[in-house]
Amino acid sequence: MNLDARLDHWRSEIDRALDEYLPDEGSPPLSLHRAMRYAVFAGGKRLRPILTLAASEAVGAEGHLALPCACAIEMVHTYSLVHDDLPSMDNDSLRRGKPTTHVVFGEALAILAGDALLTRAMEMLATEPPGDAMAPRRTQVLSLVARAAGAAGMIGGQADDLAAAAIAGSAASERLISIHRRKTGALITASVLAGAVIAGAGEEIERLRRYGEAIGLAFQIVDDILDVESTTAVLGKSAGKDARDLKLTFPAVLGPAESRRRAEELCREAQAEARALGPRAAPLGDLATFVMARKN
Amino acid sequence: MNLDARLDHWRSEIDRALDEYLPDEGSPPLSLHRAMRYAVFAGGKRLRPILTLAASEAVGAEGHLALPCACAIEMVHTYSLVHDDLPSMDNDSLRRGKPTTHVVFGEALAILAGDALLTRAMEMLATEPPGDAMAPRRTQVLSLVARAAGAAGMIGGQADDLAAAAIAGSAASERLISIHRRKTGALITASVLAGAVIAGAGEEIERLRRYGEAIGLAFQIVDDILDVESTTAVLGKSAGKDARDLKLTFPAVLGPAESRRRAEELCREAQAEARALGPRAAPLGDLATFVMARKN
Repeated sequence: MNLDARLDHWRSEIDRALDEYLPDEGSPPLSLHRAMRYAVFAGGKRLRPILTLAASEAVGAEGHLALPCACAIEMVHTYSLVHDDLPSMDNDSLRRGKPTTHVVFGEALAILAGDALLTRAMEMLATEPPGDAMAPRRTQVLSLVARAAGAAGMIGGQADDLAAAAIAGSAASERLISIHRRKTGALITASVLAGAVIAGAGEEIERLRRYGEAIGLAFQIVDDILDVESTTAVLGKSAGKDARDLKLTFPAVLGPAESRRRAEELCREAQAEARALGPRAAPLGDLATFVMARKN
Repeated sequence: MNLDARLDHWRSEIDRALDEYLPDEGSPPLSLHRAMRYAVFAGGKRLRPILTLAASEAVGAEGHLALPCACAIEMVHTYSLVHDDLPSMDNDSLRRGKPTTHVVFGEALAILAGDALLTRAMEMLATEPPGDAMAPRRTQVLSLVARAAGAAGMIGGQADDLAAAAIAGSAASERLISIHRRKTGALITASVLAGAVIAGAGEEIERLRRYGEAIGLAFQIVDDILDVESTTAVLGKSAGKDARDLKLTFPAVLGPAESRRRAEELCREAQAEARALGPRAAPLGDLATFVMARKN
């Protein structure tokens, strides 16, 4: 299977499972359930859950074992987008080509839908796959996802990002990498590790961690470049917004050419780690290429 | 030990443990950590974590086994207050006698601090008490807390509460009980069950569930009565706010006298369940008295 076909296959598996794991749109509280589903099915790339499935396959498991973890991680990612888009945070009205959740459902329901997605994700990580024998792995995955998503990871990165607009000079590059590693990188790394841990990975873990950290940072650098070089129509979210908000970004700190060179270097590092894991990890190598080549 | 001395003892244990489990105020991101600690240490009654400790003792465990669960549940409760107080939700500026978190830290940090408290709570439930032998109990507790806090429980109750202001007539009483059972009752019941499950409870569980459901609903009825009959100074939050917001409450639907009679009946039910559990459960009976007699 080539990468495009494989990505399509994974996406349809993930979307079918998400539909099953989310509360029914026809059951009360209707508006809460609708807001949760609107946010999740607004058309994401599903990069994080795909990484979870690819990592579990890279260590020899069948993909379906990691499918609940993968869906839970996509819910955590989606909740973070819903909250980050709120007027008091990044104030974004467009996401994945559609009005953001608070624009459609109002701020209160957007906050509650985000809370409910995070809570549902944690419930899934605690219960799937079932059985007492799997319980130690479930708690390990839950703990690593929660650390990555918490104050020391994603939420801390967002808090610093909101406060970082005014910083410049030689400290900016270091601070930028620190913010991006936490805000985006930590959950991407956790997506990879979750798939590996639930599949019972052993010594492959450290290599997968390096793989995850490399593509996590590469992903965010490409995100920053696309914000400068692409258009709102292609991105599906407001282009040029980082500069208007005076955000700390890689193109602003290093210039676009050096930013691209850094991202390419990180993708090559990730590909080297994937190669060292053997043929079962080939899709992880392809995903590094995908992260570099993506247009939105 | 009489109830007051026992409550003081439990509260100081809980506060010391919360201090340990929350991120350091002196480590970055400073403002996020400060907002988390501000919300948690604004001076709550600690009813939910006390119920967790009392339930674990009622089934024969030592309190410290359940202390991390107890703290995690208090963090879940605190996050829900921080988000519910936001301007787009209940728009409260006073809580536990102090300015609410968003008043002090701004809306963005209040949202993030709430998110981080929920995430940290889940991480603690996944990791404490440690060891693979305890992993099945940890996942069971996490799952029941997440269900109680999620779309089918607390968050769903809050979503319906925000939308329920305009309802009246004969359907109001049924709807009110449904909202209160989810918005407040579900997490109070989960507090009791979490302590019991982590302590390895067996057949006591169903009795403890009935105990938790009875005092959960009684607690909210008393809350509604206090909002009408007490003052802002005594409550530490804005009195009379339910009526101004046209909220569905027990005094509004049933009248104050019938509301009080219902709460007393529920407390007697809870006390009967506690008595049936034997002398180790005596503090649970005392806590039902406390819920009925409280002034704030």
